[in-house]
Amino acid sequence: MRHLLSVLVYNEPGVLSRVVGLFSGRGFNITSLNVAPILDLDANKTAPATKGKAQLIKEANVSLITITTSGDAQIMEQIIKQLHKLIPVIKVMNFEGIDTVQREMMLLKVNAFGDRREEILRIADIFRCKVVDVGLTDITLEVTGDYEKVEAIIGLYKKFGIKDLARAGTMAMRRSMQREGDRTR
Amino acid sequence: MRHLLSVLVYNEPGVLSRVVGLFSGRGFNITSLNVAPILDLDANKTAPATKGKAQLIKEANVSLITITTSGDAQIMEQIIKQLHKLIPVIKVMNFEGIDTVQREMMLLKVNAFGDRREEILRIADIFRCKVVDVGLTDITLEVTGDYEKVEAIIGLYKKFGIKDLARAGTMAMRRSMQREGDRTR
Repeated sequence: MRHLLSVLVYNEPGVLSRVVGLFSGRGFNITSLNVAPILDLDANKTAPATKGKAQLIKEANVSLITITTSGDAQIMEQIIKQLHKLIPVIKVMNFEGIDTVQREMMLLKVNAFGDRREEILRIADIFRCKVVDVGLTDITLEVTGDYEKVEAIIGLYKKFGIKDLARAGTMAMRRSMQREGDRTR
Repeated sequence: MRHLLSVLVYNEPGVLSRVVGLFSGRGFNITSLNVAPILDLDANKTAPATKGKAQLIKEANVSLITITTSGDAQIMEQIIKQLHKLIPVIKVMNFEGIDTVQREMMLLKVNAFGDRREEILRIADIFRCKVVDVGLTDITLEVTGDYEKVEAIIGLYKKFGIKDLARAGTMAMRRSMQREGDRTR
């Protein structure tokens, strides 16, 4: 079973190691993970007062860890309980059963000789990939979308030969309530 | 001093924990990190033969870890040496002094009441942010770009009030040699 959760933590040395350790200690394989500071301290000084997480952001240097993993639901529950017990952990969000916006990002370097360039660029255009670098024999694309879209694009470009690939883990955010529409899904 | 490196690893349980542990064990604070499987096993079966990393991708289930960190250059060198010694580590790429394409991604939920909507969408348009969700009182944007661009966009939207923020760590890829141009820098 696939799980997706976010952990908001204070930026203390070793906190990532402890969070990751909780998963590996129980034999859970982390499929993807990303961690980044959500706002840096200077930026926070002038942040306007808003509710919830934004308020915490003001208080200290915090990072958000987003993890996708798969495994038994019961063990997952135990891990979440233990995450709550870690001192630097501010908040744990389990996205199970919650309507979320999910996005991944990928950099993809594809072989692009002669006439194949046009076809590569046409596919990029259809899937709204951005061209970020052009070499004499390759093209580098920036791809964003949900897991399925990113997988589909890898599939489409495989026949050209993929020279290099970098991919960030899934990012997630709760969808807005009473939304009027979703433009890109 | 800021360091940026990628570690290509076999997808074994606990490998992320060990890599992260090397940094925290030496008091290095990881600023951002992301890890994701680069190609899944099924996809690899039909992958065409290309050089370098792509060849390794064919052989097994591998993940790419990209880390930004800051600290003493000498200790960094020691960490890289120790990374090489870990069994599941296939390759360590240190991007120091190398011309790279660097990208970050962010999901940003901004307060958007009445007339402010238009201004928010205008800024999004200028910076090529994608609208991924629209609520009655907020708009969620997908932002990609280098570190500076992402920081600048946070700065621009702060006055509206940021409701929620998720950010992935830096992704990096070596620039192509003899490139003809760089369209988006």
